[in-house]
Amino acid sequence: MSSSLAHITDLLRQFRDEREWAQFHNPKDLALALSIEAAELNEQFLWKAAEAADPAKVREELADVLLYALQLADQYGWDIEQLMLEKIARNAEKYPVHKAKGTATKYDEL
Amino acid sequence: MSSSLAHITDLLRQFRDEREWAQFHNPKDLALALSIEAAELNEQFLWKAAEAADPAKVREELADVLLYALQLADQYGWDIEQLMLEKIARNAEKYPVHKAKGTATKYDEL
Amino acid sequence: MSSSLAHITDLLRQFRDEREWAQFHNPKDLALALSIEAAELNEQFLWKAAEAADPAKVREELADVLLYALQLADQYGWDIEQLMLEKIARNAEKYPVHKAKGTATKYDEL
Amino acid sequence: MSSSLAHITDLLRQFRDEREWAQFHNPKDLALALSIEAAELNEQFLWKAAEAADPAKVREELADVLLYALQLADQYGWDIEQLMLEKIARNAEKYPVHKAKGTATKYDEL
Repeated sequence: MSSSLAHITDLLRQFRDEREWAQFHNPKDLALALSIEAAELNEQFLWKAAEAADPAKVREELADVLLYALQLADQYGWDIEQLMLEKIARNAEKYPVHKAKGTATKYDEL
Repeated sequence: MSSSLAHITDLLRQFRDEREWAQFHNPKDLALALSIEAAELNEQFLWKAAEAADPAKVREELADVLLYALQLADQYGWDIEQLMLEKIARNAEKYPVHKAKGTATKYDEL
Repeated sequence: MSSSLAHITDLLRQFRDEREWAQFHNPKDLALALSIEAAELNEQFLWKAAEAADPAKVREELADVLLYALQLADQYGWDIEQLMLEKIARNAEKYPVHKAKGTATKYDEL
Repeated sequence: MSSSLAHITDLLRQFRDEREWAQFHNPKDLALALSIEAAELNEQFLWKAAEAADPAKVREELADVLLYALQLADQYGWDIEQLMLEKIARNAEKYPVHKAKGTATKYDEL
């Protein structure tokens, strides 16, 4: 993991422990919290075109999503950079360029 | 941004451009895609206790969430480490230790 | 409750009991299941304009959302028609016509 | 459709039209709104056991989900009772009793 992500993970652990929140932080509820923040992110775009959303609010909600993602990864002892790299490699197999070019069709219907 | 996150962002741009997917990637649909992946992440925990979820599947769905988060940040030109650090600072104000210790109550009801 | 909704609720109970699924159906997981179906509903609109979605698939995912909503209401012993009528009345207070006309602004910012 | 659901649908149309909200109500944004309400419903259960959620708040958020579900169905001209009955029949095929009894396994892995 990059030293900066390791630092952020440390800050999140310290934040949690100072507040004695480890008792609430099981993976199921962390994933639930992440999806609730994802909905708040989506709310910034509701009833409007993408460019009409307020970037400052989008930024804040995206940060919340990321903070829960990092904490969930930390519960499992995962390095998020490693898991992203693995998934990009897997996606390259699921979406070969010659099939996926210019289409938004899902891999299982390509 | 750490060099490794910058590298992953580059890979994602290349992945998108090889497939000509930039036409689909507006912030509104990227946020929507992120929340759909968040739901697939939650599905791993449905009808079961947190520890009964399959870590390999959790890992994969969490990776999908992170990849869309990175792409959304990239659309706005944001550094995800920077926005996480800012949000941790803001959360420290919303959840002062003396008020938040040991309780899962939301900040606006503390 | 209308006799048809009562009938559907009966069918859902019978469906659940024949499969011995009552053990899984606590309100927290039913709400989670509902939100996962809501994400599958949203997936029908991902990367495309509203009118490009396949109505047959939208119909099916919307049905899944409704079936979990009915089952969640049934766990609490609620009549969904009654709770919808109550909420419409409450929304009329939150969104007075003279303030809300022609704007998608949320009630707490009106 | 039962007369009571038809009545609620009428109330929702009137509510929307008095506020000139038809301009915002395309199926994509209605589905998005539904999923945001589903997240607010889930938030009632976050960090706690199912029975610790406040029923009054669960009721209100469930009502919001249902109101958007009804409005989405109305955009397509659908009768929600009809689509629920169809889906129950389809689910009975996907989850035969002898395979699904006592297990929460998804139909495609049964």
